[in-house]
Amino acid sequence: MSAAIAPRPVPVALVGLGGVGRAILSQLLSPPLSNRFNLVFIANSRQSLSLPLPASPLTPTNYAPILEKYGTPLDVTSIISVLSTHPDAPGIFIDSTGSEIIPGMYPQILSMGVNIVTPNKKGFSSSEALYKAINEASYPNTRTLVYGESTVGAGLPILSTLKDLVETGDEIEKIEGVFSGTLSYIFNEFSKPEGGNVKFSEVVKIAKDKGYTEPDPRDDLSGTDVARKLSILSRLIPTSPSLPEGYASVPTESLVPEVLSNASTKEEYLERLAEGDEYFDKLREEAGKEGKVVRYVGVIDLKEGKVEAKLGKYPNDHAFATALKGSDNIISFHTKRYSPRPLVIQGAGAGADVTAMGVTSDMVKIHERLTTRI
Amino acid sequence: MSAAIAPRPVPVALVGLGGVGRAILSQLLSPPLSNRFNLVFIANSRQSLSLPLPASPLTPTNYAPILEKYGTPLDVTSIISVLSTHPDAPGIFIDSTGSEIIPGMYPQILSMGVNIVTPNKKGFSSSEALYKAINEASYPNTRTLVYGESTVGAGLPILSTLKDLVETGDEIEKIEGVFSGTLSYIFNEFSKPEGGNVKFSEVVKIAKDKGYTEPDPRDDLSGTDVARKLSILSRLIPTSPSLPEGYASVPTESLVPEVLSNASTKEEYLERLAEGDEYFDKLREEAGKEGKVVRYVGVIDLKEGKVEAKLGKYPNDHAFATALKGSDNIISFHTKRYSPRPLVIQGAGAGADVTAMGVTSDMVKIHERLTTRI
Repeated sequence: MSAAIAPRPVPVALVGLGGVGRAILSQLLSPPLSNRFNLVFIANSRQSLSLPLPASPLTPTNYAPILEKYGTPLDVTSIISVLSTHPDAPGIFIDSTGSEIIPGMYPQILSMGVNIVTPNKKGFSSSEALYKAINEASYPNTRTLVYGESTVGAGLPILSTLKDLVETGDEIEKIEGVFSGTLSYIFNEFSKPEGGNVKFSEVVKIAKDKGYTEPDPRDDLSGTDVARKLSILSRLIPTSPSLPEGYASVPTESLVPEVLSNASTKEEYLERLAEGDEYFDKLREEAGKEGKVVRYVGVIDLKEGKVEAKLGKYPNDHAFATALKGSDNIISFHTKRYSPRPLVIQGAGAGADVTAMGVTSDMVKIHERLTTRI
Repeated sequence: MSAAIAPRPVPVALVGLGGVGRAILSQLLSPPLSNRFNLVFIANSRQSLSLPLPASPLTPTNYAPILEKYGTPLDVTSIISVLSTHPDAPGIFIDSTGSEIIPGMYPQILSMGVNIVTPNKKGFSSSEALYKAINEASYPNTRTLVYGESTVGAGLPILSTLKDLVETGDEIEKIEGVFSGTLSYIFNEFSKPEGGNVKFSEVVKIAKDKGYTEPDPRDDLSGTDVARKLSILSRLIPTSPSLPEGYASVPTESLVPEVLSNASTKEEYLERLAEGDEYFDKLREEAGKEGKVVRYVGVIDLKEGKVEAKLGKYPNDHAFATALKGSDNIISFHTKRYSPRPLVIQGAGAGADVTAMGVTSDMVKIHERLTTRI
């Protein structure tokens, strides 16, 4: 019962090698993780490479030309087959893509006994049918695990904290937070307790130049990213309203103002951005008169039975006004136990390294569960 | 590999029925936990009771007279024997006492294959010899688990977050926080960004009357509780300075002023408390002139190689001045990845229900690890 545990490197396939995928690769190849995991595949959206290489070992810097030269066309199904029949199976499939197709395969992957870790929000925030199929194919219904800590708040312990609260019988009353690093930055710059008169369009352009926004800033300003995170959280709360279409069922306020809704390309939108300034100036002015700032927030209000992504006004001495800086996320859990003051978690909620950390810490937890055999 | 998991209630002994122990009992007997755990013993410092009862089931309200009537003298060794040979072993031993003796038995308990969950800081914050013996007898060296999430920050995810940071290869630069709910309350009332002239002795008396302090407030004001929490955190960081005597090796500023150090009883101390006011008035005045507030903090500074519990001055716009309320804890993790802004966790860090939640969420994690057999 107390015999020492033979280190058993868990076989892993990493699919998706964008910024987050590369940071995951880097963490997996470095101590303290390199002894626990055996990378048997890496892949981008086109090609995959079976490992180990016959020649020199893979590093975080040499993989790109090697994949280009020796890779074969990506075939997710055969990667899963290899993982599920590997001598050290069960393995872990990391979906670090932005794909909508791969999450559709999660139930099949799980039913083949392969665990999944992913920062991809789409599997958990789309239709309820897919979400249910994923749950049915995973723990506690089966022995196979699917972890997505980094889908909300990147490396911040948001989902694990919510699970702990729910599983120990606390009653969630309200979750409220700034869930988008991009929108956090934009509003922290645009609307400050001490005032200021910078234009909304200027802040959006600076955020875009700093690389804080998607290539088309409307992808952030639409609120969809926040709505996806809200559906992921909401589905972990038994008393939460059902969201049959996931994020698409969440009332979501778009920050693309009426006057700009007819811009057909991102170029036209960016060019005409200043046309929306009057709208945002007015919002900030109204809030200022009440001693408040403007923030784009996600709210899950269990008493009201509402899930919403929207603009909100917060008093100048509220944590969303005073404590929030840069592109940080801040999330407050109001519960029966954490009352009258909420449990609050704050910090970088986006960025390759911290998102990768959310992924690799999930992997450590799976490794522990796989190696604690009684 | 993907067969459904037969629910296997894990046998549990709960020793210690003070405020936290009673809240643990209440959580364990209620959904969603009552199906996962099988309470086979409850005990206070004198008596233990073997369960289930022949007659009516145990409830959070009927246990006290039943234990009094049917209990037998407490014998920890025989409780452990029963847990380790139970048909559903391995079981979990909950040490919810303030004992120094039971933590000395952890290595033995673990080596008998019994998992431990505890809010008792003493096993992890005393001598390095004991700490090492506990580690050697537990995972990953053996299959047996010892979890103590609630020893720091109660139900707040402090230890688990630090473990995630360390295990995924982040570099901790500094951990800084207000770790004592009692001292948080006292200084949040005594030293405010907007000023104020309440006396230190008055605030201590109010805190005592509200039940926020130990019966002898010097137990809080000595800083020992903070020093214990710092040693627990520090020992999870590979690059941290060694603390051979645990909390006793941590430089700790006492808040019992020089002039009161000769008070021999708590009654005398409380009576003479106002003699220390001049000292604290001066501290607050000095801080105020610099635009700062006074807080009692714990600091682990890896760059300086220092672990300290001390009074610190923080600018009026610092989170420790603006965001901290009531008796909340606030802990900031400055790391290579979380830079320049730290990862911050805030909320109630003391209280029976939230401390019990830290215990029962550890138990859920052990339950998951025991039931994920491949």
